[in-house]
Amino acid sequence: MGPHPAVAAIRLAVRRALHDVLSEHAVVSENAGDTRSPGEPPLVLVACSGGADSMALASALAFEAPRLGLRAGGVTIDHGLQAGSADRAQEVAERLTALRLHPVESIAITIGRTNTGPEAAARTARYAALDDMADRCGAKAVLLGHTRDDQAETVLLGLARGSGTRSLSGMAEVTGPADRYRRPFLAIDRQTTRKACLAQSLPVWDDPHNDDPAYTRSRVRHEALPVLEKALGKGVVEALARTARLSRDDADALDSWALQAERAVRTDQPGTDGWDGVELDTARLYALPSAVRRRVLRRAAVAAGAPAGSLFARHLEEVDRLITAWRGQRAINLPGRVEAARQGGRLVIRHGSQTPPTPTG
Amino acid sequence: MGPHPAVAAIRLAVRRALHDVLSEHAVVSENAGDTRSPGEPPLVLVACSGGADSMALASALAFEAPRLGLRAGGVTIDHGLQAGSADRAQEVAERLTALRLHPVESIAITIGRTNTGPEAAARTARYAALDDMADRCGAKAVLLGHTRDDQAETVLLGLARGSGTRSLSGMAEVTGPADRYRRPFLAIDRQTTRKACLAQSLPVWDDPHNDDPAYTRSRVRHEALPVLEKALGKGVVEALARTARLSRDDADALDSWALQAERAVRTDQPGTDGWDGVELDTARLYALPSAVRRRVLRRAAVAAGAPAGSLFARHLEEVDRLITAWRGQRAINLPGRVEAARQGGRLVIRHGSQTPPTPTG
Repeated sequence: MGPHPAVAAIRLAVRRALHDVLSEHAVVSENAGDTRSPGEPPLVLVACSGGADSMALASALAFEAPRLGLRAGGVTIDHGLQAGSADRAQEVAERLTALRLHPVESIAITIGRTNTGPEAAARTARYAALDDMADRCGAKAVLLGHTRDDQAETVLLGLARGSGTRSLSGMAEVTGPADRYRRPFLAIDRQTTRKACLAQSLPVWDDPHNDDPAYTRSRVRHEALPVLEKALGKGVVEALARTARLSRDDADALDSWALQAERAVRTDQPGTDGWDGVELDTARLYALPSAVRRRVLRRAAVAAGAPAGSLFARHLEEVDRLITAWRGQRAINLPGRVEAARQGGRLVIRHGSQTPPTPTG
Repeated sequence: MGPHPAVAAIRLAVRRALHDVLSEHAVVSENAGDTRSPGEPPLVLVACSGGADSMALASALAFEAPRLGLRAGGVTIDHGLQAGSADRAQEVAERLTALRLHPVESIAITIGRTNTGPEAAARTARYAALDDMADRCGAKAVLLGHTRDDQAETVLLGLARGSGTRSLSGMAEVTGPADRYRRPFLAIDRQTTRKACLAQSLPVWDDPHNDDPAYTRSRVRHEALPVLEKALGKGVVEALARTARLSRDDADALDSWALQAERAVRTDQPGTDGWDGVELDTARLYALPSAVRRRVLRRAAVAAGAPAGSLFARHLEEVDRLITAWRGQRAINLPGRVEAARQGGRLVIRHGSQTPPTPTG
């Protein structure tokens, strides 16, 4: 008798991700001149909170890795936000060890203060700790347990920002330094990971934060998605996950176009005489499709010193009107003391402290 | 004392739309060789259901058109779906006449049977009637009363399909033959149109269909959007409307890229010897970004006879794997008896009844 269907599903998803890691590892080794990688087999880590998603992931990694000649380790992060969190992290680490993962670490992190909110600050500290362990252990990859349901929630959160195709593209399957982070479960639903834990008698821990309506993601999960399913049909989660994949491809293609277009419309010599503003040819900008022009303008504003996170669609629309609806507007002020002004056939975007190196017009 | 703020807002929106119509009319007249258009002033129609949105639109058109040297007329469609609908259409026509619109018509339509559902069938019949009246009267434009709320609902409906950036782009501001249809209210919320009707003592009629939970759009309006606002914040409608604008621009840019790319990868001579299949160079296809390649494959499948409405993301993903994950797969069957097969360095997409004009490989 084979494994429970849910267990088969999570193992297949992890096996595919590990095949990708192995084939990339082989390419790197070949390029490095050796035909076989020497010494120990490559190490893959799993980041595990103790919840159903990441416990299922850990169990599948523990099963598949040795069959593919890989070593498997685990890490759990103690965010220190709840009483007893250190004990709980220790318990999760013991469960990972019981799955025969090695090495296993429980890492306590301190969440700094940022102006992007506590969820973003926690994420930054968490990934710094994961990066650090991966570097120390020489891990080829770190598996993350995000499911298709998490992906759907992320797309809805991006939709609420209303900042376009990139913000609808959710989480990437592969990301991070040296493509370290992998999300094998983006096509697996949360329910399957629960069933897989149950079928394998794995204890799971439900983070009370996940049900706390003070968190936007929790409201999306428990209020918004069920009502959307009721109004639009059961396929909503799958549709949102597909939207993420398609939007990511679209955003990547348009970014590559914008990169090329920027070279063609830029008229200054970047870096000359301490000048770090940007000069663009207005006629060539005008000839670009709006979607590409807006991305070129965003790149130019960021290059001139505007903080990417503070630059919104409405800022870029106003700069765009210097090109598409020119009627002698004044300079546009952008975040970070950057300004955009039209000077004859040039659009000049520069930091408030800068003057252009040569007269333009 | 000026008009009520809601009345000022709807008039400004209509004035902007009419300016666009006038400037395009002037360009056409100049190109036709005359400096002024001869005879009667240009006519603009409003399509009016009697609801708050389109009654507000009719009132604003009646106010602005004469000030811009335009004639204003109106049309209401009797869908014949409810008892007494003919009387109601007659009443709406009288209200339009009372606003001094001329000509005014009430047009009864018969909704055909289609396999795309009753809402789509009603839309097809309605636009056919509007086109017919616009042609008969020589109208330059037909104004439609869709608001920002309608746009947000349309984006959510597109999201539920999960078919990518184009399906998130909502309704266009300008569309139809000769850019006839205009939606001046896409940035105006529904509440503003209600207030404007109230301030002008205009009676409005609420279509009971709009509140009928049997209709998906009605469920989106009354169930999904309020819960999304509660979970994600008040800005959701605005964010969805902005998503529509950005997605439309992105989809347009990628379509233009795909059109160019298709010419570069196509290796057959379209139309030769009765051949209406498509042959594409696999190496050149492989070099395209996924987003562009999928659009080229979609265009090719439609050119070979696959019905555009039946061609889903999963079909194109399967064809795409003939390019990106080639391991000797068989031909892929697509809707409309079209098949896609790899033959050496060519991807051949053709109708089941076709054979290629020359051996390939």
